[in-house]
Amino acid sequence: MFIATIWGLMNDEQKAEWLPKAMEMKAIGTYAQTELGHGTFLRGLETTATYDPETEEFILNTPTLTAYKWWPGGLGHTVNHCIVVAQLYTQGKCHGIQPFIVQIRDLETHMPLPGVHVGEIGPKMGFQTANNGFLGFKNFRIPRKNMLMRNSEVKKDGTFVRSRSDKLTYGTMVIVRVNIVNDAAMQLSAAAIIAVRYSAVRHQSQPKPNEPEPQILDYVTQQRKLFINIATGHALRIVGRWLWKTMLGVLQNISEGNLEQLPELHALSCCLKAVCTQDCTAGIEQCRLACGGHGYMKSSNLPLLYGLTTAAMTYEGENTVLLLQTARFLLKTWTQILEGDTKLNPTVLYLLNFAKPTDYRWENTNQGIIKGFQAVAAGKIKTAYDTAMKHVGAGKSQEEAWNLASIQLVEASEAHCRVIICEVFSNEIQRASNTLSPNLSRVLQQLVELYLVHWALEKKGDILLYSTISRDDIAALRIRYEELLALIRPNAVGLADGFDFRDEVLNSTLGAYDGRVYERLMEEALKSPLNAEPVNSSFHKYIKPFWEKAKL
Amino acid sequence: MFIATIWGLMNDEQKAEWLPKAMEMKAIGTYAQTELGHGTFLRGLETTATYDPETEEFILNTPTLTAYKWWPGGLGHTVNHCIVVAQLYTQGKCHGIQPFIVQIRDLETHMPLPGVHVGEIGPKMGFQTANNGFLGFKNFRIPRKNMLMRNSEVKKDGTFVRSRSDKLTYGTMVIVRVNIVNDAAMQLSAAAIIAVRYSAVRHQSQPKPNEPEPQILDYVTQQRKLFINIATGHALRIVGRWLWKTMLGVLQNISEGNLEQLPELHALSCCLKAVCTQDCTAGIEQCRLACGGHGYMKSSNLPLLYGLTTAAMTYEGENTVLLLQTARFLLKTWTQILEGDTKLNPTVLYLLNFAKPTDYRWENTNQGIIKGFQAVAAGKIKTAYDTAMKHVGAGKSQEEAWNLASIQLVEASEAHCRVIICEVFSNEIQRASNTLSPNLSRVLQQLVELYLVHWALEKKGDILLYSTISRDDIAALRIRYEELLALIRPNAVGLADGFDFRDEVLNSTLGAYDGRVYERLMEEALKSPLNAEPVNSSFHKYIKPFWEKAKL
Repeated sequence: MFIATIWGLMNDEQKAEWLPKAMEMKAIGTYAQTELGHGTFLRGLETTATYDPETEEFILNTPTLTAYKWWPGGLGHTVNHCIVVAQLYTQGKCHGIQPFIVQIRDLETHMPLPGVHVGEIGPKMGFQTANNGFLGFKNFRIPRKNMLMRNSEVKKDGTFVRSRSDKLTYGTMVIVRVNIVNDAAMQLSAAAIIAVRYSAVRHQSQPKPNEPEPQILDYVTQQRKLFINIATGHALRIVGRWLWKTMLGVLQNISEGNLEQLPELHALSCCLKAVCTQDCTAGIEQCRLACGGHGYMKSSNLPLLYGLTTAAMTYEGENTVLLLQTARFLLKTWTQILEGDTKLNPTVLYLLNFAKPTDYRWENTNQGIIKGFQAVAAGKIKTAYDTAMKHVGAGKSQEEAWNLASIQLVEASEAHCRVIICEVFSNEIQRASNTLSPNLSRVLQQLVELYLVHWALEKKGDILLYSTISRDDIAALRIRYEELLALIRPNAVGLADGFDFRDEVLNSTLGAYDGRVYERLMEEALKSPLNAEPVNSSFHKYIKPFWEKAKL
Repeated sequence: MFIATIWGLMNDEQKAEWLPKAMEMKAIGTYAQTELGHGTFLRGLETTATYDPETEEFILNTPTLTAYKWWPGGLGHTVNHCIVVAQLYTQGKCHGIQPFIVQIRDLETHMPLPGVHVGEIGPKMGFQTANNGFLGFKNFRIPRKNMLMRNSEVKKDGTFVRSRSDKLTYGTMVIVRVNIVNDAAMQLSAAAIIAVRYSAVRHQSQPKPNEPEPQILDYVTQQRKLFINIATGHALRIVGRWLWKTMLGVLQNISEGNLEQLPELHALSCCLKAVCTQDCTAGIEQCRLACGGHGYMKSSNLPLLYGLTTAAMTYEGENTVLLLQTARFLLKTWTQILEGDTKLNPTVLYLLNFAKPTDYRWENTNQGIIKGFQAVAAGKIKTAYDTAMKHVGAGKSQEEAWNLASIQLVEASEAHCRVIICEVFSNEIQRASNTLSPNLSRVLQQLVELYLVHWALEKKGDILLYSTISRDDIAALRIRYEELLALIRPNAVGLADGFDFRDEVLNSTLGAYDGRVYERLMEEALKSPLNAEPVNSSFHKYIKPFWEKAKL
């Protein structure tokens, strides 16, 4: 984020000064925006940067406890510079938040500079090595030219000049979110590999007398827990790649001055980041639990994967907030449709089919399920719209109505996102099928179908409400789901191997390619510092004195 | 477990010897059953105890790596005795698993005895202080009388005598599972208190210009995340208390020789342990995520609560395995019904109403929703039964058919459990209403209704499939759900306080009664050992040498 911000928000002169420093790691930096009391709502940030024209400096202050910067990675011990986002005051007026580059530690001794209060925020659920930090300022002065001046400027005399659209800063956020989709998909894939391989090694129970204990991968309940996560791993990696390509196209257009697709891209990246991190977090946890007690061992690497992925549900836009961002775009689109405007963005074009009563009929096919999800999304967007309008009609303000409709809005956004994932996954595998061997193509098609049928069954309530699906259709889907599990079973380990993660990356006692699960578990246990001595110091410190006291 | 096992499985002579030792903490013990390669399937345990009539001793052995005992709490460093569960061999024959009491460490020096390999299993996702251990034996001899002989016996000459029913050992397992239900409910309640109090302190965004940022508890999406967890906390504590009372009654009957209710109690405790730990784990995570980034801080205590509760999804009976146990009871009951037997256990009596076509109609009331869940459970039991029968009819063995129907079986079990929770929660609050003030009674009724409507909406797919609910009914439930959130909002903090947890127990920077969230977060951060010095050693160790090298 530090270098991306220098790249994105500095003017050319500033870049010339700072980029080399950053690239040579002389200026080690982080991006300090979030405060102890302020996350999502940027306008609420409290850190101030007040311009002093006499010395041509900004004076940084942390006026309250809640104004302390909190979370930036590396801030605790590592960095000597920060991009600090602060409320800009000049000529007695606040001009909103602006970014500043600030040296916070001595470049030789690494000591915090006078006026800087910096430290580490303490233990977390994961990311233990990120040394996330806090940062406060007391009358800390920085030169005028340390304001990042690509979009706005403060002149020597203190005059504030805004030069460029704020919209452009969406760009960085979109890139970050697209990366999160890819990371989450990779982490889920890793968890799926670990759990599938372990389930091939682990044997349990004896359903038939005098036969050996079967691999737990042969239990249908275990297949249900794992195979969907193989499919999801592929689905979201493909969606991530598609989103990246889409984004490059939009950024290209932006560079040519065409901002038209930006709202759609923003809406896409918001809901995809939210739904992918949510699905991957849930999937990793399902994989972990499918490994029983051994999944609870840190050496399985599943707890770490969980900690990493669940954090992404909160950072770079909290998921509920992001879904509401997408909902805003969807409601705008719905209003467009109601007003008879049919010039919609490509990813919401499907809504036109459901805006008026149609002769749409459910079909138990891949395309039929996708169509069903489109009907659900359209139905939910309509419900959310109607709910908001009902509250406005009852005299509520726009803001109150939005809040009162927000459950429906979040659900609409999720449903739209499910359409996108299903469509992209299905289309991209279809498109690739000519270039693949028939065998590989068939297996991938099974994963697509499993993904679609799984979600149709998961969302059968919505599909029953918003489509013409029948009870018999659902019963048939259930049977097909179980058939697919059986079809995928022989290839399950191959599919796990096919993700092509090196053992060093998986870093798991349970998931290594050679299947030496129990050996590795014991080897890791023996490394525990708590096994260094045959009698732990706690015996001499607590148990022995306790016994001696008890004897008295 | 150690003392409970001494109590439950030793004969009177043994108890007289061991109970005082255990109570005086001279014999510190643990229960060592699970092995590295064997959990659920007890008959698969590999540790052997071979009787030697010459010396009147058992010889304990760990024949393979997978036979190592793994997980027992305190085994790593603390205990000097274990109850070891091993395959008993005498007179050349295996008599299955039996429990033995084994001294593993010297009582003075605490050194492991010769022939004992004991240690700690390494870091885990939670329970870091439990020093879970591993244990292996090599020709380790123990006296004959160290076999726990309440139920079975090995005579001096090696003759094996089985004296009592195995069924009685269910008793201990039931008690353990009932306790887990209560613990999980308490842990969820703690998480709900923390998240509700934090949401009253935290302010965010500015929906209306020039007004202060509202408490995040005023956002409907936040209310949706939190209020169900207040309700669930109450529901499961009440169900836990009811289950405890039910169990005491059954145990009383057993002591009078009547074992009739044991299968029902076993089935109840299995599904309630599974569903409660699952709901509480999900609920705690929802509460944690509702606290944004600060919920990710360990000092919030939410990650610890999560680690504790999710472990209970695996230990003392893995949840899927337990749900299948209950399913076995439900399928037996269904067979009884099909055979015209109407003498059913009380908790499954409701199934009689749905075994034949009825004139049952959905109603949007508390009782109507409970009835709807009964219809769902009956429908799912029937589906599971029919699925298993279909596979048997197609020539599969009983065991294969069971496996092929297991997804439906697990779902049937969950649905039955939801009926129990809804019924008990609703009935117990109703019954108590005479003894409560009208105001308190009204608020508790709101929680009951919220719980029921929440789950009706969550399970609307099942309800649409198996009941006569209409789309309008569902729309009305959705509106009622939002009304309930608004009704509960003014009492939310009071309800959190009403759980009556002391700050010392909550142990949370976010959840303390006084609301000093930000102060506590900073206080805890400043305690981090990583803040002991202004410049961390990592600078001298890594960053400075890196710069110096880069200069060359």
